[in-house]
Amino acid sequence: MLNTLIVGASGYTGAELAAYLQRHPYVHLSSLWVSSQSLDAGKCFSALYPQYKGILDLPLQPLTDVIETAKGIDVVFLATAHEVSHDIAPEFLAAGCIVFDLSGAYRVQNTQFYKKYYGFEHKNAAWLAQAVYGLAEWQAEKIKQAQLVAVPGCYPTVSQLALKPLLEQNLLDTEQWPVINAVSGVSGAGRKASITNSFCEVSLQAYGVFNHRHQPEIATHLGTEVIFTPHLGNFSRGILATITCKLKSGVTEAQVREAYQQAYHDKPLVRLYDNGFPALKAVVGLPFCDIGFAVQGQHLIIVGAEDNLLKGAAAQAVQCMNMRLGYEETLALL
Amino acid sequence: MLNTLIVGASGYTGAELAAYLQRHPYVHLSSLWVSSQSLDAGKCFSALYPQYKGILDLPLQPLTDVIETAKGIDVVFLATAHEVSHDIAPEFLAAGCIVFDLSGAYRVQNTQFYKKYYGFEHKNAAWLAQAVYGLAEWQAEKIKQAQLVAVPGCYPTVSQLALKPLLEQNLLDTEQWPVINAVSGVSGAGRKASITNSFCEVSLQAYGVFNHRHQPEIATHLGTEVIFTPHLGNFSRGILATITCKLKSGVTEAQVREAYQQAYHDKPLVRLYDNGFPALKAVVGLPFCDIGFAVQGQHLIIVGAEDNLLKGAAAQAVQCMNMRLGYEETLALL
Amino acid sequence: MLNTLIVGASGYTGAELAAYLQRHPYVHLSSLWVSSQSLDAGKCFSALYPQYKGILDLPLQPLTDVIETAKGIDVVFLATAHEVSHDIAPEFLAAGCIVFDLSGAYRVQNTQFYKKYYGFEHKNAAWLAQAVYGLAEWQAEKIKQAQLVAVPGCYPTVSQLALKPLLEQNLLDTEQWPVINAVSGVSGAGRKASITNSFCEVSLQAYGVFNHRHQPEIATHLGTEVIFTPHLGNFSRGILATITCKLKSGVTEAQVREAYQQAYHDKPLVRLYDNGFPALKAVVGLPFCDIGFAVQGQHLIIVGAEDNLLKGAAAQAVQCMNMRLGYEETLALL
Amino acid sequence: MLNTLIVGASGYTGAELAAYLQRHPYVHLSSLWVSSQSLDAGKCFSALYPQYKGILDLPLQPLTDVIETAKGIDVVFLATAHEVSHDIAPEFLAAGCIVFDLSGAYRVQNTQFYKKYYGFEHKNAAWLAQAVYGLAEWQAEKIKQAQLVAVPGCYPTVSQLALKPLLEQNLLDTEQWPVINAVSGVSGAGRKASITNSFCEVSLQAYGVFNHRHQPEIATHLGTEVIFTPHLGNFSRGILATITCKLKSGVTEAQVREAYQQAYHDKPLVRLYDNGFPALKAVVGLPFCDIGFAVQGQHLIIVGAEDNLLKGAAAQAVQCMNMRLGYEETLALL
Repeated sequence: MLNTLIVGASGYTGAELAAYLQRHPYVHLSSLWVSSQSLDAGKCFSALYPQYKGILDLPLQPLTDVIETAKGIDVVFLATAHEVSHDIAPEFLAAGCIVFDLSGAYRVQNTQFYKKYYGFEHKNAAWLAQAVYGLAEWQAEKIKQAQLVAVPGCYPTVSQLALKPLLEQNLLDTEQWPVINAVSGVSGAGRKASITNSFCEVSLQAYGVFNHRHQPEIATHLGTEVIFTPHLGNFSRGILATITCKLKSGVTEAQVREAYQQAYHDKPLVRLYDNGFPALKAVVGLPFCDIGFAVQGQHLIIVGAEDNLLKGAAAQAVQCMNMRLGYEETLALL
Repeated sequence: MLNTLIVGASGYTGAELAAYLQRHPYVHLSSLWVSSQSLDAGKCFSALYPQYKGILDLPLQPLTDVIETAKGIDVVFLATAHEVSHDIAPEFLAAGCIVFDLSGAYRVQNTQFYKKYYGFEHKNAAWLAQAVYGLAEWQAEKIKQAQLVAVPGCYPTVSQLALKPLLEQNLLDTEQWPVINAVSGVSGAGRKASITNSFCEVSLQAYGVFNHRHQPEIATHLGTEVIFTPHLGNFSRGILATITCKLKSGVTEAQVREAYQQAYHDKPLVRLYDNGFPALKAVVGLPFCDIGFAVQGQHLIIVGAEDNLLKGAAAQAVQCMNMRLGYEETLALL
Repeated sequence: MLNTLIVGASGYTGAELAAYLQRHPYVHLSSLWVSSQSLDAGKCFSALYPQYKGILDLPLQPLTDVIETAKGIDVVFLATAHEVSHDIAPEFLAAGCIVFDLSGAYRVQNTQFYKKYYGFEHKNAAWLAQAVYGLAEWQAEKIKQAQLVAVPGCYPTVSQLALKPLLEQNLLDTEQWPVINAVSGVSGAGRKASITNSFCEVSLQAYGVFNHRHQPEIATHLGTEVIFTPHLGNFSRGILATITCKLKSGVTEAQVREAYQQAYHDKPLVRLYDNGFPALKAVVGLPFCDIGFAVQGQHLIIVGAEDNLLKGAAAQAVQCMNMRLGYEETLALL
Repeated sequence: MLNTLIVGASGYTGAELAAYLQRHPYVHLSSLWVSSQSLDAGKCFSALYPQYKGILDLPLQPLTDVIETAKGIDVVFLATAHEVSHDIAPEFLAAGCIVFDLSGAYRVQNTQFYKKYYGFEHKNAAWLAQAVYGLAEWQAEKIKQAQLVAVPGCYPTVSQLALKPLLEQNLLDTEQWPVINAVSGVSGAGRKASITNSFCEVSLQAYGVFNHRHQPEIATHLGTEVIFTPHLGNFSRGILATITCKLKSGVTEAQVREAYQQAYHDKPLVRLYDNGFPALKAVVGLPFCDIGFAVQGQHLIIVGAEDNLLKGAAAQAVQCMNMRLGYEETLALL
């Protein structure tokens, strides 16, 4: 049995992690932690998430002493704010823990990126250099040996899973940048009090146009530019991404299908549609990323769907852990 | 043209008031105010409520000097916190303004009530004694002469409109307290940042069981005890109240209907159902309170519906103003 | 391994059954069936419910020959219309199958009941007499020996679980009938095309006032009359029931709590709240019935919550199967 | 006073038309009609739409004899199915009525279009040739003289209002087709019983990819090709369209802004955003189309929002009527 803990268990992603780990056959979920300033410190997990009453009633402890906390722990999940992850990941790593970080702090191997897009200076260049980007279907070999996995978040996961097979096979005319229009549920903004996310205020709308930090993350890892327009939708969970791109002249629908098949035929958490497109409801509450597409002339439209908190966060983190430790990829997830 | 202003125009009720007054033919909406500490001070009304862009672009001014603000103003609407209303209403009244207060500060003519249920000491007993309770269909004569109208809020309005005709006609066996189960939209909690009202947290649930301050308000004004159980519902606007009570032995359905007809046949903002029950959608966005009922033996079930922000707040306030100033009751409302 | 099948697998309840059985360690879900006229006949289960793509892709077969279908089958779940269940249950029973019927066809042991409330004549009095009412927490001994279990539906389950401990301990003054106000999600109406259930039409509203067929079912099984007012809510899943009743003079809160503890301390699918009340979100997607209560004088308010499709249907059916076959009660459910 | 009638008043668009006309100062809404087969024939309008109880209680009459129905009628609104409009518009026109058709039957002046995209043969080529496309902001002069106005629907209205100013000023590099991603509320599918639109089934999803009939309508009227991907959203009303396109080399943000200003500075129902983008809630229940945009290099993202039933249907029809008859454009709409 692995000893694991979660830091940031009061948030939506942390809560999903807790649920997965609690039912994982080879994992002992030792403890749940929140930042030392959190108003939730000391509360019972199931007081925040009543659905887990009787199932997971651990206290949310305030993290003050990482070295003490890390004792006897094999695996740590950080569902914390970017700067918190930046700060505490090295301490857990130094203590020998394997760390799965769900923040943005170790996703792009360029320290300048953080100043520009996250507003803080990255001071852990060495760990950044060792971090493995946890896009599970594409990084299996590296994940198996990583001590620090930077699990990609919601928009980058669905966007890359949808585009990467076509780019790998060189099917896209990338002179015309792929247009990614994505709609995310409100949980993507995290569990916090804000007017913007209050029930009466939420409404379908674009945000972060031309300046969302996930645009450079996606572009960097894909190796090609994209136009990324995120939207807030009036639902709690899930992301639907509609991607419009241009095929190279002469590329056929069969080639597109073949590229997806080749990439994902043996990947249990990506589901390809023979025809039609995934609806959001196909993936909410589930660890999958679903992909459908259609071709007309050189035009290609791809629709990708995932639960932003699961394949876009917690499920992918557990998937990475399973891969890292040699378990079946979908253990505890299905 | 009457000169009017609104204090608390950044809230949901204040915004509805602004919309009504802006289209009222005999009213000039001079200015919009918020409390001096409000983070919205200085913003444009339509920046908070984009639906009014181009229609109502007045600034939200921070209220600091009531005497100055009251100059030249005929009518003031207070859509403010209870204690703020308590404090500033007398100043506007002293300046000669007619005041429609939508808070709870002047609704019950018993200063002890405020200490117990609102947590503050009522220091304006004289004005409290003069305040008229603005349940429009039942207080017409008093409203016509009032300088201070304490407009009842959402739960008390629908509850009293549903029960009062039966009590006036002495049809209920009140030994068995009427059971009021009401579900309110999230806007009832006001426009503010809170975890409880955030999109992902809202869920149908009871609250304030046996201790909601509207219970004694309803009981006091009806002159009979009630069991009042409010619920939060997963919708933005509206209240549906299902009321179960016991008829006196021998009372017929026809007598119940007659009581309602007598009370409301000439009241344009109460709509009686010949059969069936109002759905919430019948009243959302409209100034009505809709009432339906059914009788079985001595059992009587009444369903009342209203928009909590309209007949349960802003529309009733404007209705009271119309009555006070001799305009048609529904002016600007329909 | 038990061989099981589901009739009515295209409906919301049938689909939940399928999901549970598919992951049950001792069950082989042999086949999925729909009525022979169903437009869904021949379709793949996951074409209707895309969330199960890759997990459960069985075809929905049209049921024409029960005897043939029953061959080699140990356990049958009927998630069919009342009259269909009425007709086919005896055939499966005659073939030796254990039958869990989720319709209303065998819930009340009085043939007259069906003519009055369901509009059909009950012709299987012998089986009706043998049917065990599957309110799992209260019928364990009988369920263990039953060949036909009539699993109670959503409103009766939550209503009875909330009231039965108090009635068993004789704590209620039933002269004053308990008032059950319940709000159900739209899935309670089943998967079908109708204006009433279409997205733009749904709105919180009462229905079936004084004439819903669940009122006599509840009253019969509790042995006391109740006033039951169901409502449709604007959400997909879940039921919240707020029950107002009167305690016998002198009964204390401690006695109420003791009654609940005694009834449910060893029942894993009923969760009691020490204080506060369950919100709907505590149970959606989960097999629990959650219960909270408050006492003031002789007044008692109980709130019960469940997922109408789970503890109010599919989960309770599987729970009954587990009990019947000697498995752990919660197997495949948690 | 103009005598008007509505055919198709039982649908969502027809109902909005009825509400507008009922409050129009120069219009007498004589009667409401539905197709002769409609199950709603004979019902009261407010039985279908309870919000209008006491406001608009006209019966929904079955239309059987157009000539008789047209007597004394000045203006007819057709909120009917495409083929019904195709058939009956000429009869009303022959009777001398001015007709505003909200169906697709007269929107594209090419009879072949109807066979291909609507599945019926257009037999009224003469009237088709005379029909004026009612995109109000762009067709004022023609609308003023039209006897038949083909009012464009939801997606084409917002798409064209967003793109036309830029195309008129020749600012777009149309070699790269504009990508229109639009999400519509469920009311766009009309008032009808269907599984697809039932509450529990609705979920964000793309549909009509590469083959929606609005694509050629938009392209024809804009004079340039577009990629149009409609989506169903989990809300009742409104459309949000996010449009990604490419500016000609050297075109500046100022030129884009100037193009919009020039097109719409004097158009009361199009609201331009100085910065930021419209949220859906800014337009629901209102007759506006709101437009915001951002430029980065040659990339341009435009967001347009409207209420699909209002500026995308009923409000635009009334706007056209106002223009046709010389009234203020926004009469009865604001």
